[in-house]
Amino acid sequence: MSKVVTFGEVLMRIAPKGNKKLNQSNELEYYFGGTEANVAISLAQLGNQTQHVGVVSNDFVGEAAKKYLQQFGVNTSSISHSDHPLGLYFLEVGAVMRSSTISYNRSNSAFSHIDPNKIDWDTIFEDCSWFHWTGITPALSYNAYQALKKALTIANSKGITISTDPAYRSNLWNYGRDAKEILNELVELSTIFIGGPNEINELLDTSFSNHIDQFIESASRLMNTYKNIKKVFDKTRVSFNANWHKIKARMYNGNEFAETNEIEITPVIDRIGTGDAYAAGLIHGLMRFNDYKALEFANAACAVKHTIEGDANLATEKEILSIARGKLSGRIIR
Amino acid sequence: MSKVVTFGEVLMRIAPKGNKKLNQSNELEYYFGGTEANVAISLAQLGNQTQHVGVVSNDFVGEAAKKYLQQFGVNTSSISHSDHPLGLYFLEVGAVMRSSTISYNRSNSAFSHIDPNKIDWDTIFEDCSWFHWTGITPALSYNAYQALKKALTIANSKGITISTDPAYRSNLWNYGRDAKEILNELVELSTIFIGGPNEINELLDTSFSNHIDQFIESASRLMNTYKNIKKVFDKTRVSFNANWHKIKARMYNGNEFAETNEIEITPVIDRIGTGDAYAAGLIHGLMRFNDYKALEFANAACAVKHTIEGDANLATEKEILSIARGKLSGRIIR
Amino acid sequence: MSKVVTFGEVLMRIAPKGNKKLNQSNELEYYFGGTEANVAISLAQLGNQTQHVGVVSNDFVGEAAKKYLQQFGVNTSSISHSDHPLGLYFLEVGAVMRSSTISYNRSNSAFSHIDPNKIDWDTIFEDCSWFHWTGITPALSYNAYQALKKALTIANSKGITISTDPAYRSNLWNYGRDAKEILNELVELSTIFIGGPNEINELLDTSFSNHIDQFIESASRLMNTYKNIKKVFDKTRVSFNANWHKIKARMYNGNEFAETNEIEITPVIDRIGTGDAYAAGLIHGLMRFNDYKALEFANAACAVKHTIEGDANLATEKEILSIARGKLSGRIIR
Amino acid sequence: MSKVVTFGEVLMRIAPKGNKKLNQSNELEYYFGGTEANVAISLAQLGNQTQHVGVVSNDFVGEAAKKYLQQFGVNTSSISHSDHPLGLYFLEVGAVMRSSTISYNRSNSAFSHIDPNKIDWDTIFEDCSWFHWTGITPALSYNAYQALKKALTIANSKGITISTDPAYRSNLWNYGRDAKEILNELVELSTIFIGGPNEINELLDTSFSNHIDQFIESASRLMNTYKNIKKVFDKTRVSFNANWHKIKARMYNGNEFAETNEIEITPVIDRIGTGDAYAAGLIHGLMRFNDYKALEFANAACAVKHTIEGDANLATEKEILSIARGKLSGRIIR
Amino acid sequence: MSKVVTFGEVLMRIAPKGNKKLNQSNELEYYFGGTEANVAISLAQLGNQTQHVGVVSNDFVGEAAKKYLQQFGVNTSSISHSDHPLGLYFLEVGAVMRSSTISYNRSNSAFSHIDPNKIDWDTIFEDCSWFHWTGITPALSYNAYQALKKALTIANSKGITISTDPAYRSNLWNYGRDAKEILNELVELSTIFIGGPNEINELLDTSFSNHIDQFIESASRLMNTYKNIKKVFDKTRVSFNANWHKIKARMYNGNEFAETNEIEITPVIDRIGTGDAYAAGLIHGLMRFNDYKALEFANAACAVKHTIEGDANLATEKEILSIARGKLSGRIIR
Amino acid sequence: MSKVVTFGEVLMRIAPKGNKKLNQSNELEYYFGGTEANVAISLAQLGNQTQHVGVVSNDFVGEAAKKYLQQFGVNTSSISHSDHPLGLYFLEVGAVMRSSTISYNRSNSAFSHIDPNKIDWDTIFEDCSWFHWTGITPALSYNAYQALKKALTIANSKGITISTDPAYRSNLWNYGRDAKEILNELVELSTIFIGGPNEINELLDTSFSNHIDQFIESASRLMNTYKNIKKVFDKTRVSFNANWHKIKARMYNGNEFAETNEIEITPVIDRIGTGDAYAAGLIHGLMRFNDYKALEFANAACAVKHTIEGDANLATEKEILSIARGKLSGRIIR
Repeated sequence: MSKVVTFGEVLMRIAPKGNKKLNQSNELEYYFGGTEANVAISLAQLGNQTQHVGVVSNDFVGEAAKKYLQQFGVNTSSISHSDHPLGLYFLEVGAVMRSSTISYNRSNSAFSHIDPNKIDWDTIFEDCSWFHWTGITPALSYNAYQALKKALTIANSKGITISTDPAYRSNLWNYGRDAKEILNELVELSTIFIGGPNEINELLDTSFSNHIDQFIESASRLMNTYKNIKKVFDKTRVSFNANWHKIKARMYNGNEFAETNEIEITPVIDRIGTGDAYAAGLIHGLMRFNDYKALEFANAACAVKHTIEGDANLATEKEILSIARGKLSGRIIR
Repeated sequence: MSKVVTFGEVLMRIAPKGNKKLNQSNELEYYFGGTEANVAISLAQLGNQTQHVGVVSNDFVGEAAKKYLQQFGVNTSSISHSDHPLGLYFLEVGAVMRSSTISYNRSNSAFSHIDPNKIDWDTIFEDCSWFHWTGITPALSYNAYQALKKALTIANSKGITISTDPAYRSNLWNYGRDAKEILNELVELSTIFIGGPNEINELLDTSFSNHIDQFIESASRLMNTYKNIKKVFDKTRVSFNANWHKIKARMYNGNEFAETNEIEITPVIDRIGTGDAYAAGLIHGLMRFNDYKALEFANAACAVKHTIEGDANLATEKEILSIARGKLSGRIIR
Repeated sequence: MSKVVTFGEVLMRIAPKGNKKLNQSNELEYYFGGTEANVAISLAQLGNQTQHVGVVSNDFVGEAAKKYLQQFGVNTSSISHSDHPLGLYFLEVGAVMRSSTISYNRSNSAFSHIDPNKIDWDTIFEDCSWFHWTGITPALSYNAYQALKKALTIANSKGITISTDPAYRSNLWNYGRDAKEILNELVELSTIFIGGPNEINELLDTSFSNHIDQFIESASRLMNTYKNIKKVFDKTRVSFNANWHKIKARMYNGNEFAETNEIEITPVIDRIGTGDAYAAGLIHGLMRFNDYKALEFANAACAVKHTIEGDANLATEKEILSIARGKLSGRIIR
Repeated sequence: MSKVVTFGEVLMRIAPKGNKKLNQSNELEYYFGGTEANVAISLAQLGNQTQHVGVVSNDFVGEAAKKYLQQFGVNTSSISHSDHPLGLYFLEVGAVMRSSTISYNRSNSAFSHIDPNKIDWDTIFEDCSWFHWTGITPALSYNAYQALKKALTIANSKGITISTDPAYRSNLWNYGRDAKEILNELVELSTIFIGGPNEINELLDTSFSNHIDQFIESASRLMNTYKNIKKVFDKTRVSFNANWHKIKARMYNGNEFAETNEIEITPVIDRIGTGDAYAAGLIHGLMRFNDYKALEFANAACAVKHTIEGDANLATEKEILSIARGKLSGRIIR
Repeated sequence: MSKVVTFGEVLMRIAPKGNKKLNQSNELEYYFGGTEANVAISLAQLGNQTQHVGVVSNDFVGEAAKKYLQQFGVNTSSISHSDHPLGLYFLEVGAVMRSSTISYNRSNSAFSHIDPNKIDWDTIFEDCSWFHWTGITPALSYNAYQALKKALTIANSKGITISTDPAYRSNLWNYGRDAKEILNELVELSTIFIGGPNEINELLDTSFSNHIDQFIESASRLMNTYKNIKKVFDKTRVSFNANWHKIKARMYNGNEFAETNEIEITPVIDRIGTGDAYAAGLIHGLMRFNDYKALEFANAACAVKHTIEGDANLATEKEILSIARGKLSGRIIR
Repeated sequence: MSKVVTFGEVLMRIAPKGNKKLNQSNELEYYFGGTEANVAISLAQLGNQTQHVGVVSNDFVGEAAKKYLQQFGVNTSSISHSDHPLGLYFLEVGAVMRSSTISYNRSNSAFSHIDPNKIDWDTIFEDCSWFHWTGITPALSYNAYQALKKALTIANSKGITISTDPAYRSNLWNYGRDAKEILNELVELSTIFIGGPNEINELLDTSFSNHIDQFIESASRLMNTYKNIKKVFDKTRVSFNANWHKIKARMYNGNEFAETNEIEITPVIDRIGTGDAYAAGLIHGLMRFNDYKALEFANAACAVKHTIEGDANLATEKEILSIARGKLSGRIIR
């Protein structure tokens, strides 16, 4: 089986337990994550060969981050070390109408100082059939953008499938370049678009609504604009409050529009990384199933991530398939 | 007051905290349980004199298990020690559509190696008015089956009330005997049947549905088949997801059918041992109240167990009576 | 900015973790609280200058209690030390239909032995524009009642706004005086009444219902009886179970009746101190906004407290304003 | 086997973890203890039939205290409930030259309000061969003193062996009676004295030193003064710092002086309850062995308690015998 | 670099925290270990390519065990799954003169049911230069013995270096075969002997003392008896108590005797796995250094393991080299 | 009483519990510290009025840092907020010969970006009699150096006593300036030198040994070079291993040399911040006692810090005085 390669910053999440605020306890929990690493971990957990490319700090924190990925079987041989610290974020977990709050410490991170010339993409892409990136990476630093661009160019030339979740986060992008220009340049090199009207509007300066018709129209527009993009996979969410959501997924592949059933999630155990779970589920599904079954698998993967602590989806293929088939009662398995 | 005797395996539950998967933390929590011990603990907590009969390991684990029962006042003088380890299970707690998963380590346990000839049932049954067993015990080993059969024969001869929850678990019963044949033999020696169409179908090879009429008909059929069985107490459950249930109980005693109100449970704190809480509530009720009030008490006991961590119901009689009377708002008591 | 002064017992809350019963774990968590101190902490967190007056034990427990208040910026210079222990309570947290249970250890506390002659109210009330008290304080001991009466008399003479939550707790009031007589005497010295038909009925021996018309009528009656009372702020709650509430607030200021929208709270993270959060929100609001906006702010403050562990509301003004404006979806803030 | 009865206050210990100060963590650990209850628990753990007499609070705290004793097999049927709170103490654990600090909250406790007329000593002393008391009990309240005096009178009349550790704690004894007068009265009714020159000096207003000769002389003087006292068992300790001690025990029974080897203890895990462990070891030993072997057993019991968390010694007879025989290397037992 | 292969049971350690006894807390900590897996982990941590061969349970426990090894980079591709449970042990950690106690639950484990015919040793030994085994494995079951024998025969035929720590544990070896006969057979197939007079006496029925001369003589005798054995590496320990040890190592390779300096260890943080740390250090050293430097490295590795929680040594080569060079002051590294 | 002002970076310490390595647990503990903030906290705890000047992040982490200082009564009104993250460090705690390891994440911190022109030193130094700085601050950034220089110039002009611990850390000082040149410039503005031959050698390029004569000579040389320096206070340490130290302090004030007794510390609970405890003890002492008594107080403060978890010394004046007077046995205080 050929491998999936992901590229991005490994982040450490540090949070007080439960719903405590930081000054309410001297105890913290941590997980390692980062959107692309989450995809790699989930794909490994689902049985795929995966490799994550990035940079971690040259200390016991970076070492622990690598071990974290290795335990799931993610190949870390192309994760290098740097004298800069590992990026991290602090989290206070909210509830009901109280929002969770995240505070990042990543602008000077090991990853943001990545040297684009020190990554041997040719070797990394041997036996690789899929490359996944997100809009976080080019937002972090010029170096990160350059490294990603190089990866995409080489991957493209090798005919590798390239999926992207081009999430635009306005409070990143602090190195003086135009986010849209860069994202356009990189999406153009990609083949699978994970997003919907919101993400498309950001790229194309359009104003599509979330209505189904508009979704299809926006996806068509996107595929017309970027000829490499072959399929568009979106997900939608209704949030009653921080602990009570409903999610659904939809797709358009040029010919066919499809939509999954809605899954109600109450209570939400961990909201973070649910989009990454969707992306990983989608990649796993598209490598094995038809588009619609892949979409259902991705939606079920996204749903079950809401019940799993930490940043990455640790559900197995069997668990997700069962949920995708509509088994939602959560009965004990003995 | 005469005592209630229970017989079965004391199990240790070991689980990561919260909704974590085992590899997400080096911390675990444990409880001691086991279906019949849970009944004994709950009955003791409700103010009854109880004695549990079984075998634990001859080490600090078995010692701790005995102490666990003793704290609630359960008489452990007929729990013997063996060189085999205490049975245990690992639990990963699910949420919403993600199932909890249980993995047992009990096939070589101290209890499964029980010596049927070393239990002095005659002494144990002095001052005993009630004996409770479940279908787990004869499923564990031939020895356990033999010990139980002996207990039932002697209890029967002494006119002791005998309740059974004849749960059939297909992944047990590995010692080469026919489950149904044995369960039939043992149910025949019992007087109170805790179960409904599902359990009756397993015993009688029938196919009753869960419909009320079918419940009554199945209970009648059961009582016709086993002349000792005088009353049938069932419980039903609707599971929206792992954290959101509705429960209800019903009975047929040959003359009278009755059904409790439904109780909605959200969020479920701990799903395990809720059936044992029902059985304990029922035994407690039938020793004190009329059948219908006992049923309501059992249903309330079952409901409140969903809010209590660990395997056994630790609610008091006062708490359960209040719930049985319809006080469900959970206001703080100062 | 002039300061708010609160007066009352600082209590220590001690509870097993999660929904455990005390004998299920050797681990406990603690918070410091007490209804008036909770108000002081919340007001400090909202940016107000606050001072709490009281007595703590002359040991490391009392020292830690003072540090707890100091961290939020509450001025503790008028908290004295006594050889009696700090008042405390044990809490077992219930769920669904199981009630939380509180057991107090405060009847011999440092605060109950307060010496009314040792508090220099004249100095304390310099630069003070608001004084807040509750019905707990005069219930604790004759000394506490005397100290409070003196405070109210002096505050009144200085034209300080005086708010009261005159909660009558029948299981306090053990020192042989008539609760109603005393509460009447003290409410008479106050200007803002935090309560509704229930509290008014207790004071006036009336029997108003919770209906809107009755609320207005009861508030009018109260204001007629106590000429100092200018405004009445009530809150109402529907409890489906211990984890699922709906709350709403209403007011009558002699001219105008108003009511907020209802806020649904599921799951409740911590029920304790929600009334104190309301009082603090109200005081904060009335010092800055018009009556209705203050009411909305108070209701939002009360709502968000249900999501915060511990006795005091730690939400910021920004968070509460956002909720008061109807943002209830709890989306992550990055 | 006839039983040992102990009488005294069950106390709850509440402490931050490790060497933390209270304000350094919101987490606490608790144990139940109290000097006489510690003796009862240790004796039960050593295989003796024991009964503890006392009063606990009428709430879940008192209930948990009883369960704590019951787990070890201590008979709690003569522990009554009261509306007053359970006595408790807070502990900050020191290290090296930093002292541990204890702050009590017991002056208004359930036990101090004991009703001397409500204890049925005649029934309690059936089948009892040994009664143990300490100087803490009469120091707590006049009621406690009266209850103890009654117990001693009845025990004496029944020829029960009565051991006492007449520890004089100057910061107790706040109810207006003369400590020495009362202790003299009570020691006179006892047969085994656990103490040495320090305790004897307090009782007899003498000034014996800790020198061996003085120990023998002081013990002789004591036995001359109180004709019931037949044996005196002392223990001595050298404390290099809070974590590094050496202990030794000695005895004089009128004829014979003996002294054990010294045991070095580094690091001390828990210093509290080591005297109670000594007393329990002694009682256990004297009921089975000769005086010297009992002394060695008591010293070993005291030593091993320094390695056990919580207030009571949980070591088994086998463990203590092995240490008494000089096995101090602490090799792993598999 | 060619790889090191280890073969044996992966065990789960479950223990209450600190020095608590099991019934003193509901909290546990776990680690995965097992003597051969510990060697593999330590070697991986030191930078070697390693592969562990064994069987784990077919559940989330076995899955977590594999992930545990994978995080350190140990190749787990030849660890198979079985329906039997993972072997485990409970540990209560002693202190000073109180022994730690271990209770095993492994006699029915996944590993003990290993199928000797299902291991493809030929493939496993490709690129392998070193194979390590211990006397635990053949003690567990006949199947385990057969599997090991096959491994040794094939390894031998390929000229692979074979190290053994032939620890004889009398309470294992319950399947009816003669321990010494089997151990002799297996040691004969090995080239590096990790042990000294104690182990040699067990094998050869001799009675050498621990004296240096006797060590050399015993090693000579061993090498004469088993012609494959080329070198003997021993370690000695003085235990003042459970927390205070001194260790030293010595060797004889036919020509040369050497001994390291003694290292004092106080306090011991974790005693378990220190022998495995020695073995791993030795293998690492012998693959890189001369015999004496390897011995010093092994002794330092053993020493530092006493400061590391869990079963495996996680120290790095740099840390161990620094200790081997005599840097014992433990100064903070910033 | 006039106040002490400190200036420097508030750092967050994040560490796994006990002696665990980061990847051995998902749980962490944190403290706030930083060398100058530690001095401020300790001085506040000792009863002094203190103010800390610095910059924290503009998020809940920075907010919690300020609350941490406020709880002890440190005035934080001159701590500003910045969009850069709070500096932090990860710690793995070693034992015996295994070193603790610290990894910093501070090079891009809020403090390092401090704006020297935004600090109103004139206001801050009102009512200030003592200013304390360390060599860490000018090492962090050019901005920090400039801010400090300004502070020293103004403090000097106001005749404020200025103490310095001019610790030179070679792995800081990354902004391109010469450490020695800058430290010389700043020490010149100071009056109390906390250091000895090591620190003096770094400043003066001398090579004094730690011998007493050399200490006196080096101190004289220092005082000759920097005419403002009036007194030199040194401390010395012998480290047997990470858990076992001996410390001693000495001074020279131009006329008088003095040295304290040695204090043995075993086991060390927390090594970090012991130098800061010394500095705080010294400042406290010099404001109240003669030089020698201040030295003894500082040495005792340093000693007791080794027993306190976290970065700052939380001992009280009473505790430290008792240790300074030689009470080292650590007996329980009730």
